[in-house]
Amino acid sequence: MNAEILSIGDELLIGQVTNTNATYLGEQLSLLGITVRRITTIGDHIDTLQKEFRRAWKENDIVISTGGLGPTHDDVTRAAFSNVFDMPLVEHALVLDDITRFLSERRRPVTAANRDQAMVPAGAEIIRNNNGTAPGYCIHRDMKHFFVVPGVPHEMTGMVESFILPRLLENFRNARASTTVLTTGIPESTLAELLGDIQSRCDGCSMAYLPSTLGVRVRLTAIDPEQERAAERIALMQAHINERAGEFVFGTDDDRLEAVVLKLLIDTGKSIAVAESCTGGLITDRITNVPGSSRCFDRGVIAYSNRSKIETLGVDPRIIETHGAVSRQTAEAMAAGVRQLAGSSIGISTTGIAGPDGGTASKPVGLVWIGIAGETGTHACEYYFGTDRIRCKQRSAQAALDTVRRTLLHLPLQPTTIRSQP
Amino acid sequence: MNAEILSIGDELLIGQVTNTNATYLGEQLSLLGITVRRITTIGDHIDTLQKEFRRAWKENDIVISTGGLGPTHDDVTRAAFSNVFDMPLVEHALVLDDITRFLSERRRPVTAANRDQAMVPAGAEIIRNNNGTAPGYCIHRDMKHFFVVPGVPHEMTGMVESFILPRLLENFRNARASTTVLTTGIPESTLAELLGDIQSRCDGCSMAYLPSTLGVRVRLTAIDPEQERAAERIALMQAHINERAGEFVFGTDDDRLEAVVLKLLIDTGKSIAVAESCTGGLITDRITNVPGSSRCFDRGVIAYSNRSKIETLGVDPRIIETHGAVSRQTAEAMAAGVRQLAGSSIGISTTGIAGPDGGTASKPVGLVWIGIAGETGTHACEYYFGTDRIRCKQRSAQAALDTVRRTLLHLPLQPTTIRSQP
Repeated sequence: MNAEILSIGDELLIGQVTNTNATYLGEQLSLLGITVRRITTIGDHIDTLQKEFRRAWKENDIVISTGGLGPTHDDVTRAAFSNVFDMPLVEHALVLDDITRFLSERRRPVTAANRDQAMVPAGAEIIRNNNGTAPGYCIHRDMKHFFVVPGVPHEMTGMVESFILPRLLENFRNARASTTVLTTGIPESTLAELLGDIQSRCDGCSMAYLPSTLGVRVRLTAIDPEQERAAERIALMQAHINERAGEFVFGTDDDRLEAVVLKLLIDTGKSIAVAESCTGGLITDRITNVPGSSRCFDRGVIAYSNRSKIETLGVDPRIIETHGAVSRQTAEAMAAGVRQLAGSSIGISTTGIAGPDGGTASKPVGLVWIGIAGETGTHACEYYFGTDRIRCKQRSAQAALDTVRRTLLHLPLQPTTIRSQP
Repeated sequence: MNAEILSIGDELLIGQVTNTNATYLGEQLSLLGITVRRITTIGDHIDTLQKEFRRAWKENDIVISTGGLGPTHDDVTRAAFSNVFDMPLVEHALVLDDITRFLSERRRPVTAANRDQAMVPAGAEIIRNNNGTAPGYCIHRDMKHFFVVPGVPHEMTGMVESFILPRLLENFRNARASTTVLTTGIPESTLAELLGDIQSRCDGCSMAYLPSTLGVRVRLTAIDPEQERAAERIALMQAHINERAGEFVFGTDDDRLEAVVLKLLIDTGKSIAVAESCTGGLITDRITNVPGSSRCFDRGVIAYSNRSKIETLGVDPRIIETHGAVSRQTAEAMAAGVRQLAGSSIGISTTGIAGPDGGTASKPVGLVWIGIAGETGTHACEYYFGTDRIRCKQRSAQAALDTVRRTLLHLPLQPTTIRSQP
């Protein structure tokens, strides 16, 4: 099965927006065993769209077009589709219902432009949009499939996951198993050395390292005529990885470190409070992204100034005077202070120099102390997270959450192989 | 002048790598006034490459191909180029020198594969590569240009900046001015109605709406033989937009709302403190992303539970009992409480139901109250931000920051045209 992705929008051609939609679609189609032969990006011009729709439809089994379905004059995808497949536009009652409900939930009026979005190509099957007002549609002819969805990423992914992927799976099966193992606290090169020849031990498997600021993901893929055997191979590789680098593995696939940590807390009946200086709220933001986080998270304090560390967290001013705001002692006092304030089982803290200013020879930009206070005492670890402000915040928040994970799993507080993350 | 970007590599089609090269090239070419008509992404298959090289060369004035020039067997761009333009491969002394020097500076041997990279299409002009071993090349025929460069981003950008852009500038000049106006607090459809016929009033200008969760960006582009006149047209369109929708405009291009707000605070000698319930730290995270934020930001409190609102922010428990934690009264008490705690000029607060649970008929998931306390009193506004937890947080944080902007600029606290954001 061959596929082409048509990405529509002037903003993609002029480099204002990066085409991450095509990345997502390429990955999803590949995981189904579909060969993506081409990604074509074109602007919002109806003649071009019609020409490319016809060509792509002729050359491929599957075409997915994204973008150009908004309510404004520069959106012409619907008209092009309507012309190419000779399907005049008609108002669709279910779509109008969806649009009306979506807007009323947000207390917004249904404008003429919104109402016009309920006009869809007659005879096309509707792809409902739970995250916006533009519907998608598709046609299936001669064993071929043409899908049209909006370009707004979360609208597009919602429709691909709820409609397009299930529809494609109905049509052909191809046994492919895939898992992404998520690690944090270890650089790619060190991880690759630890894992070494694992891949060669598993026939028909492949392993790819995907490094990012927050850790290295290891993507495992196995292909087999039988689904069960492909899954077995993946499980075998996962077991090898856990044997060699298990301490760094916090989850798989879409797991998020904050959700993993909250589950550990809830499972052990513990609660957490957070005192943030250099991370500035990023840790509590991540914690509260998890539905149900209120079960083990009660409060956090963003203590950016010395005064706020003293007044709100009860840090002894002499500690800051003697050791500085960025020090083991201050990190420990912040963690213990917020634990006491909230009456929680665990207190976690960050204090560091995120830059660009404020660094010295002995305490350079990027130095971060992470403190943790719990039933068995209070500790702090030192990290060097580099000179980029945003990445320093991100890596600090990740390390702080990982410190909680390590504590709850009785692992060493800090990765032994390194002092700072990849 | 029309251009096409050919992005070559299987990794782009299977979604392993996002095509940021095309984003970069699209932007660079657009800035020169060149119209990028198409970006075509194809895999490393010689037949496909040859076919697409021929087509793109026929249809465009400029073709830039990236990728497929590495030293391994799956790199076939050079062979395709050699065949299409009938230029047999010959060893190029300067290129071999470059490769030898590049490797010796890194204490690496010149392998057979590296030496083979010095074989280039006879008659093509060389584009030297300071950051890697693969040379680029180009041909110029009949006023047309075909450039071939590697796909490794820093090698590609180095060669584009040192060779391709200067070469294109020699050949044609065309002035293009472009600005993106950033709005928040108004849905795309309402903004489009307000702005209406602005575009038709400005010759040679175009306007594109780019909606996102946090607001709508409006990209303005003008083309003119003279740079100054193109810039004047943009300024005229901007003036029209400010006249009709100025209250929603918070900046242009790469401005960030949090930085705009902090600058307003610093310029007026004011400080801010933050009390977050439903946003969970996202507001302080955004504030502390801005270098120098400590000049006007001292502390924040993440008060997730009722108890923490009472204990840490001093909210009267009777207020929560009578009106609930998500209410105008609680939002106001939180804002006033954190302002007093920090001794800041302004206190801002959020309390809402981010979901997925906790909604009722009268207080549905998505209901958010945003409070602000300042020298002239305390107020709160009601919003409905939809049922997606993460987006509800994002939109709440954006609205809270925009409430501060509106207060400092003496605008209505809440957009008058709507009760909730796009």
